[in-house]
Amino acid sequence: MRDPRYDPLFEPIRIGPVTAKNRFFQVPHCNGMGHAMPLAHAAMREVKAEGGWAVVSTEECEIHPSTDLTPYVEARLWDDRDIPALALMCEKVHAHGALAAVELTHNGPAASNLFSREVLLAPSHQPTKYGYPHQARAMDKADIRDYRRWHREAAVRGMQAGMDIVYVYAAHDLSLAMHFLQRRRNQRTDEYGGSLENRVRLLRELLEDTRDAVGHRCGVALRFATEEMLGPGGVELAEARDIVGLLAELPDLWDVNVSAWHNDSLPSRFGAEGAQEPFIDFVKKTTSKPVVGVGRFTSPDTMVSQLRRGVIDIIGAARPSIADPFLPRKIEEGRIDDIRECIGCNVCVSGDNTVSPIRCTQNPSMGEEWRKGWHPERIAPARKPSKVLVVGAGPAGLEAARALGQRGFEVSLAEASRQLGGRVSREARLPGLAEWARVRDWRVGQINKMANVATYLDSRLEAADVLAFGAEHVVIATGARWRRDGFGRSHGLGIEGFADNPAVFTPDDLMDGRLPEGDVVVFDDDGGYHATVLAELLAKAGCRVHFVTPEDVVAPWGQYTLEYRHVRKRLAALGVSVHVSRMVAGYSGRRLRLQDAWSEATFELGADGVVSVTSRLPDERLFLSLREREADWKDAGLVSAHRIGDCDAPGLIAHAVYAGHALAQGLGEAAADTVPFRRHFHHALGP
Amino acid sequence: MRDPRYDPLFEPIRIGPVTAKNRFFQVPHCNGMGHAMPLAHAAMREVKAEGGWAVVSTEECEIHPSTDLTPYVEARLWDDRDIPALALMCEKVHAHGALAAVELTHNGPAASNLFSREVLLAPSHQPTKYGYPHQARAMDKADIRDYRRWHREAAVRGMQAGMDIVYVYAAHDLSLAMHFLQRRRNQRTDEYGGSLENRVRLLRELLEDTRDAVGHRCGVALRFATEEMLGPGGVELAEARDIVGLLAELPDLWDVNVSAWHNDSLPSRFGAEGAQEPFIDFVKKTTSKPVVGVGRFTSPDTMVSQLRRGVIDIIGAARPSIADPFLPRKIEEGRIDDIRECIGCNVCVSGDNTVSPIRCTQNPSMGEEWRKGWHPERIAPARKPSKVLVVGAGPAGLEAARALGQRGFEVSLAEASRQLGGRVSREARLPGLAEWARVRDWRVGQINKMANVATYLDSRLEAADVLAFGAEHVVIATGARWRRDGFGRSHGLGIEGFADNPAVFTPDDLMDGRLPEGDVVVFDDDGGYHATVLAELLAKAGCRVHFVTPEDVVAPWGQYTLEYRHVRKRLAALGVSVHVSRMVAGYSGRRLRLQDAWSEATFELGADGVVSVTSRLPDERLFLSLREREADWKDAGLVSAHRIGDCDAPGLIAHAVYAGHALAQGLGEAAADTVPFRRHFHHALGP
Repeated sequence: MRDPRYDPLFEPIRIGPVTAKNRFFQVPHCNGMGHAMPLAHAAMREVKAEGGWAVVSTEECEIHPSTDLTPYVEARLWDDRDIPALALMCEKVHAHGALAAVELTHNGPAASNLFSREVLLAPSHQPTKYGYPHQARAMDKADIRDYRRWHREAAVRGMQAGMDIVYVYAAHDLSLAMHFLQRRRNQRTDEYGGSLENRVRLLRELLEDTRDAVGHRCGVALRFATEEMLGPGGVELAEARDIVGLLAELPDLWDVNVSAWHNDSLPSRFGAEGAQEPFIDFVKKTTSKPVVGVGRFTSPDTMVSQLRRGVIDIIGAARPSIADPFLPRKIEEGRIDDIRECIGCNVCVSGDNTVSPIRCTQNPSMGEEWRKGWHPERIAPARKPSKVLVVGAGPAGLEAARALGQRGFEVSLAEASRQLGGRVSREARLPGLAEWARVRDWRVGQINKMANVATYLDSRLEAADVLAFGAEHVVIATGARWRRDGFGRSHGLGIEGFADNPAVFTPDDLMDGRLPEGDVVVFDDDGGYHATVLAELLAKAGCRVHFVTPEDVVAPWGQYTLEYRHVRKRLAALGVSVHVSRMVAGYSGRRLRLQDAWSEATFELGADGVVSVTSRLPDERLFLSLREREADWKDAGLVSAHRIGDCDAPGLIAHAVYAGHALAQGLGEAAADTVPFRRHFHHALGP
Repeated sequence: MRDPRYDPLFEPIRIGPVTAKNRFFQVPHCNGMGHAMPLAHAAMREVKAEGGWAVVSTEECEIHPSTDLTPYVEARLWDDRDIPALALMCEKVHAHGALAAVELTHNGPAASNLFSREVLLAPSHQPTKYGYPHQARAMDKADIRDYRRWHREAAVRGMQAGMDIVYVYAAHDLSLAMHFLQRRRNQRTDEYGGSLENRVRLLRELLEDTRDAVGHRCGVALRFATEEMLGPGGVELAEARDIVGLLAELPDLWDVNVSAWHNDSLPSRFGAEGAQEPFIDFVKKTTSKPVVGVGRFTSPDTMVSQLRRGVIDIIGAARPSIADPFLPRKIEEGRIDDIRECIGCNVCVSGDNTVSPIRCTQNPSMGEEWRKGWHPERIAPARKPSKVLVVGAGPAGLEAARALGQRGFEVSLAEASRQLGGRVSREARLPGLAEWARVRDWRVGQINKMANVATYLDSRLEAADVLAFGAEHVVIATGARWRRDGFGRSHGLGIEGFADNPAVFTPDDLMDGRLPEGDVVVFDDDGGYHATVLAELLAKAGCRVHFVTPEDVVAPWGQYTLEYRHVRKRLAALGVSVHVSRMVAGYSGRRLRLQDAWSEATFELGADGVVSVTSRLPDERLFLSLREREADWKDAGLVSAHRIGDCDAPGLIAHAVYAGHALAQGLGEAAADTVPFRRHFHHALGP
């Protein structure tokens, strides 16, 4: 079954006292469920183990109330009462022959302690990383002793929970072990500050402590960032080489990456598979211990190349394991084209950042394993293989057709245009978004294998066509169009001079190839990725681009997906001029009238064209006209009509895929009268 | 005991089928605990009932998964499984003879559904209020029927939980019942859109539904916003008068306020007690039903004036009930000067906004009632009335001395300066912060009643003095000073040309009365309130003020305290020029060199002076020198030395008060080996 080229990926490897069965390692990743939803969390990790990952890690795991990461929901080992939640995860991971790993952390000034109300700790007195109005205090020797004791005790609790690998965490600018390395955070004058050896001391002690406490049963891993991309205030590659040299044989495993999180989990818009190689390839040359690295690896050829060329020993993955928990097993079974590749959109990251369960554009079962019983590979067969017509082959329609096909329905998928993919195909042609086409490609690939799913291009349907078709169920997924009238979050009554102005363009116009020229204003009242991607498109097409937004920051949603800093830098590099806190009062002639959101002062900007990125209107015409003819349904044999995706409520591609999947899961099933998913309820146990 | 002037505050009043025992009504307020921490929540509400409030309300209570407010943690009545959490609250509130109220809500496009993944609902297709990248869809007639059914079912569940009052919520721009009123959110062309009567239809139906469902046992309250301060897109006073006229006798109680939340819960910096009167005084003239209104009422004279003048019938309060849950009882018992008055700093609000339990500057027991067993009025007596020396009479030292005194310790409070209050006294002299002096005044008032607390002004102590004093415990609360070297969140290695530059000023300089003149840059790398308050001070002193910050927004912490929008408008009104996303590269001569955080382009700004608001250094000299002499402690009879507040880790005044209180709670008690507070643990119950 397996291509022998990929055999190296399936060789076992020792990590201290334990052995990983293959080279697939789900590195620690946040998920927005953590300690608050332990059953949901354990079920999500279990699916990774089932899918063939040799090691499945937790997210960051707080070792003490003084590293309370509220509002973010991570793992906890504050005291013994936290063991059961992680023991549950270990049990489920072990059931599939995988190892479980826990990433212990004390985040020092990168914690909040908003819940625990403890005083924050840091190498030296300093502000919090995230802007909270309470500083962290310089740790004295007693604090350092306490910290080491807490770390050791948490390691033992991890072992008691059943963990096979215990991490010491010095990455992402998130943990004290890293903060002590950084000159900008460590101005100590004692033996823990100053020289590199001094700044490394605490990290060395933590590694020694952890080996001493649990090394007889657990592998000790070090997650280490080799480059912060911040210049001399941060960890730089040259210094990182020295640090790896100083600690080379101390951990049982090196897990290396770049810092901070937005550089590590780089969106595909800003970096390709394997982008970290130049920053981490030195490590394997410095240590005899196994090295795991990441790079949004989804191609087995790339993976095996990393191993053969001696870059890393183990394929680390967070996002690829989210998009496809069964990635290792698919390689093992020779099912390469079944791999659901990560598109690098980072909606997964937005879960942690919005304090909500992780989701994935490609894998709509992510975060739903426990509460809805969804599985990335399996789905309940249809109770009756009825005939279903899906109208529209965008992400919602494609996923609905695919999942309905998997359930055994007799599916017809009608697409008005000559191309499948809908908005996915249109958006994937925009700068940086090419990998998003994987949403379409994987589904089309799967559908093409199904005898019970027929696809029709160039098939624009009216209500009469739908009724004549004879389906028992119809699913309308006809998408949405961007508004031209300026209606949006900040302009609830529209904008004067927009609606019928030929100099006003919508994102759809631009995706249709109709671009403005000259001085162009991109007006963003949407706050997502569209406006900044279009600004990039226009700048590259030679326009002088002004980015205008009523928001006080550029494209704020990108703060949740780690795009934000990259977007700001790219717009700056492209020479796009940015105008924040600007309402639009009107547009006529070449004059765009602006108003400052705070002072209410007015300005004018000369604009040959304005791209209005405000909000979208569902293309719900077919759905509404079908519903107007509800009296005719019975004769036509039609039992249900649903609308899904953007034609219901425009959102991200992730929302459309989810809506398609949810429709497919529920079609023909009894609707629940109460909340249709399991929840965690909360009880005090002690002390 | 009670002053007869205040008798009207203690007359019972009927609210539909139930009777409130007096005129004190804790209106709904968020608390960051909600459904996630039901035991903590119930205990917090119980203390209000114990303190004499006749009605104690929940926060917003979600009626259905399609109004999931994640990440914010509010109450829930999604289905019957949510009843026990609120039944617990009702039981505890009823135990003290108070009524319980629940504020039912469906937030439509102001929800997120990040947890439930349901599609958002709205009067018309529109973006989310909070910037999430998924739109809300226009509700059709079936959606409106569903919504009414969900609301009715939730009302019944509330009644089953034991609620005495059920709210229909149409305020704060947060709920569908209000969104249907707003032209900017409602563009419907059916009988729910267009004319005022049509836009009011849904609200009327909800009131009728609720009366019908639970009106025989519960009072039906309407929380209604009379003015959004947004012009014709929003609810305006003129229209609000008509709405009140249309619905006048339908609810059993009118709870009226202004919208949005930042206007309702106005920080004291931007508005005084009773500021809402001109916006709500018309309501009582229009209805015969009782009217409750808010205005951060802490003065019984103001309260009784509101009643006597016919402005309102019932004193509503959120923040004053947080600062002093025993406010009604203190008035009843004639203990007016024991009232711990709200200072209007809005740190309470930051709990909800940071998804963490509510806290209060004045009342450090807020949010700690269940998990630590703290009470706003009672505290455990000292096991042994040892002699304690508290050094420093800022907020931490004052609260420590007060609470230690309450416990029965023999307390000496030594203050180096000639005034009590420390930073509270200094900051309360800054523009808009006068009410913050209440933190000092209440504590000084309480201490002055205690025979076992002695206060010494003008008493700067060295380690030798402390050792000579003969205390068993010493508590160091010597505060902090602002740094002059530029070291802070964005400049971890300091800023060239700052440290020894006489043209660089710190907030301490300004509070000492040493102000720059001419063109002044306020450089804010702190992000809290100090920099904007100082910019206001300087602008009013005649400086030309430039506000420069490396952040992309001005004073971002203010987004959590509802100060943000008011700060932006005030700076604009004062003519302060704002420069965001600007690092400081150096300062020499009159030239401040700036660098754009994104493009790295450099600029110069002419500045006669720079006020550097970056971070603080604890004044820990006494503490450290005392610790150096630990060998001498035994002979001196000294058993413990603690540092608290800013001299430990600089923070808000709230952190200092909390630290003083926590020290007092723990002194002489055995330290817990595990996490020293109760927690909620999480279990699935089904289905």
